[in-house]
Amino acid sequence: MNNPLKIAVAGLGTVGGATLQLIQAQADILSQRCGRDLVVTHVSARDRNRDRGLDLAGIAWVDDPMALATTDNIDVVVELIGGSEGIARDLVEASLKAGRHVVTANKALMAHHGNALGQLAEGAGVSLAYEAAVAGGIPIIKALREGLAGNRIERVYGILNGTCNYILSTMRDQGLGFDAVLADAQALGYAEADPGFDIDGVDTAHKLAILTAVAFGCEVDFDAVYTEGIRHITADDISFADELGYRIKLLGIATRINGAIEQRVHPCLVADVTPIAHVPGAFNAVVADGDFVDSTVYEGKGAGGGPTASAVVADLVDIARGSRVPTFAVGVNDLAKSSPAPMEDHVGAYYICLTVRDEPGVMADVTAAFKDQSISLESMLQRGRSPGEPVLVVLITHETREASMVAALQQIGKLSTMLSAPRMIRMEAL
Amino acid sequence: MNNPLKIAVAGLGTVGGATLQLIQAQADILSQRCGRDLVVTHVSARDRNRDRGLDLAGIAWVDDPMALATTDNIDVVVELIGGSEGIARDLVEASLKAGRHVVTANKALMAHHGNALGQLAEGAGVSLAYEAAVAGGIPIIKALREGLAGNRIERVYGILNGTCNYILSTMRDQGLGFDAVLADAQALGYAEADPGFDIDGVDTAHKLAILTAVAFGCEVDFDAVYTEGIRHITADDISFADELGYRIKLLGIATRINGAIEQRVHPCLVADVTPIAHVPGAFNAVVADGDFVDSTVYEGKGAGGGPTASAVVADLVDIARGSRVPTFAVGVNDLAKSSPAPMEDHVGAYYICLTVRDEPGVMADVTAAFKDQSISLESMLQRGRSPGEPVLVVLITHETREASMVAALQQIGKLSTMLSAPRMIRMEAL
Repeated sequence: MNNPLKIAVAGLGTVGGATLQLIQAQADILSQRCGRDLVVTHVSARDRNRDRGLDLAGIAWVDDPMALATTDNIDVVVELIGGSEGIARDLVEASLKAGRHVVTANKALMAHHGNALGQLAEGAGVSLAYEAAVAGGIPIIKALREGLAGNRIERVYGILNGTCNYILSTMRDQGLGFDAVLADAQALGYAEADPGFDIDGVDTAHKLAILTAVAFGCEVDFDAVYTEGIRHITADDISFADELGYRIKLLGIATRINGAIEQRVHPCLVADVTPIAHVPGAFNAVVADGDFVDSTVYEGKGAGGGPTASAVVADLVDIARGSRVPTFAVGVNDLAKSSPAPMEDHVGAYYICLTVRDEPGVMADVTAAFKDQSISLESMLQRGRSPGEPVLVVLITHETREASMVAALQQIGKLSTMLSAPRMIRMEAL
Repeated sequence: MNNPLKIAVAGLGTVGGATLQLIQAQADILSQRCGRDLVVTHVSARDRNRDRGLDLAGIAWVDDPMALATTDNIDVVVELIGGSEGIARDLVEASLKAGRHVVTANKALMAHHGNALGQLAEGAGVSLAYEAAVAGGIPIIKALREGLAGNRIERVYGILNGTCNYILSTMRDQGLGFDAVLADAQALGYAEADPGFDIDGVDTAHKLAILTAVAFGCEVDFDAVYTEGIRHITADDISFADELGYRIKLLGIATRINGAIEQRVHPCLVADVTPIAHVPGAFNAVVADGDFVDSTVYEGKGAGGGPTASAVVADLVDIARGSRVPTFAVGVNDLAKSSPAPMEDHVGAYYICLTVRDEPGVMADVTAAFKDQSISLESMLQRGRSPGEPVLVVLITHETREASMVAALQQIGKLSTMLSAPRMIRMEAL
């Protein structure tokens, strides 16, 4: 039996607590699987006196988390503090510089500083592991970096935020509006008091930026992710989508297009027959398409203490076993420079919802605007019919360039019969 | 850049050919991902003069595959010959003994001799890797052995044979009987001329025995797998199942039950709402339930050159990167002895299909037999109603022990009103 792997955990919230519990509960099998013991030797968290229901016997408490980077007898620092700046970033940087392996669940940190941190890790000859940062318990980083390493990945996409998936699923199941379901989700603890990171798509964008780097072997480029949330999705959109054979899901999608990489996060209409349409509430799912393996799908719980701790410990097991893989699948010097495909060049079909005054000629004006942009229509649905009153009109277009769609919607928005700004949801062929 | 990894490939059928093509086509990214080149230096196959459409320039042809175990300048032997005995087994044994890493797609070999081969590999300090042996391109061995290494796996199950899944799906979609669909599948090349390995469940049992060892850290025990195929499934069964809200799938299922492991392969009625019910034709899917991660699902193509080559090369990448993990997740000396749960103790619900002569009292006799075994019924369906003529009766039971079900069916089979032997399909709560 080799020396134990000595682990310091910074942050004892839900994930930190579950990580400690997992390592203690599975000590026997972890030791068998790694050929050595995994031992938490140090912890650091904000309030020493809070009762977290954890067994901290024999574990050194460190008030200043930064000390974990330099205290003797630590092999790995597990960063579960969160946030892209401040103490989380400082601790990870200092730990890597001190030649310590780092395991983190911090997607914001990896999305914003992944390149620099990967460089530090490689320079120091240590691992920077972040399985828990994307899709909770699903071992998707490992699948992309190792399991599909024989493939040129053409596309990777998924449902990466359980809060949004819960809200959209519940809106559909209960026929409720966005605000009502968000309020419920907050009351139930499924959504944060400040829900912006989730519902505005930022959390999904963080995760997508990381997936993109691993899948395509390129630098992490969070700023290149087109990001749109789900606040504007209405109960009408969901019921229209249903009627047309679609569900609305918030997806993160990265695609290789003519040598550039398109990264986008936005609500999508996806056909009811696709597996991704049926991913329930709190689950995440990722689809990776490779040139040899074809399409592969991964599904599991995307958040929560247990699933996230499972991912943290998988990284620790890799380190304990001595497995080391470059941070983003290829060495930092081989990472391709980011080459973003601009969103105005995106090509796809669109769902358009208009609130118009029901009067003669309105549809002639609308269809003329699409014709001006050479956009052809696949179908139209109208709800209600009462002359002079507001009615909802839904249009599904054939594939077109985003720039043309934006121009058409600008023109349509200026029509005197439009009672509110035209709304658009992209359709995704999966 | 380190030394190239020198690879010998034995067997140039569909998978061998695709493996060669993959390594050649992706030379640049493989070299980046591994920090060294992957080079096929030697190949061996039966007929040197056959045109396989492969570029063999610069690759040494070896007539006797056994020579690959001893020829100088080979780091890894890739065994793609197949079969649990004979040359495949001899080559793998000799290669491991000679201190060469082995990568194989051979499920029969691993199911029958995995323990001894794992021992050889560990003794020689080399890798024995077999991602391609289970579920084609899905990186499920890696997921279980590494990605979920923090979990005690409670259950692993899946659709592991594309031929059976294709046949059952097509029977349902086209309303055809088993024999007709099998003949079509053979004509189309989806089923072998000798289809027994697939349709009798043996191939699924091979894969399940391997999954069980990795998931539970126990010795491979193929003989402990209860195995039943799909020859007896009728078009009536599929349409009755549909009517009741179920689909029929051939599953391999391994469950931890009171310290023992139950391994079984048989057709199952699975509820229409479960993801596994919708896995299409040639796809495979595996579900792994862990105590911390909860349920995780993996789906992809289960066979074919490209997906299988993807798995073979993933193993080569691990070896090239220097990652080494025990063959079945824990060292050979730590593998638990097999402790099979006998099938007669299996507990579940059952679908029963009876062909009876429609006359008074027949259902009284049937239900009395179930009552004698304390089996309670959930529902009954009857098709057709013409006194004195044969009718089909379908019964769904509540959970009961397999031994009780067998006894009840024996009793029912003896009734004079039974026009053929009672048939039973197990139901699986997923």
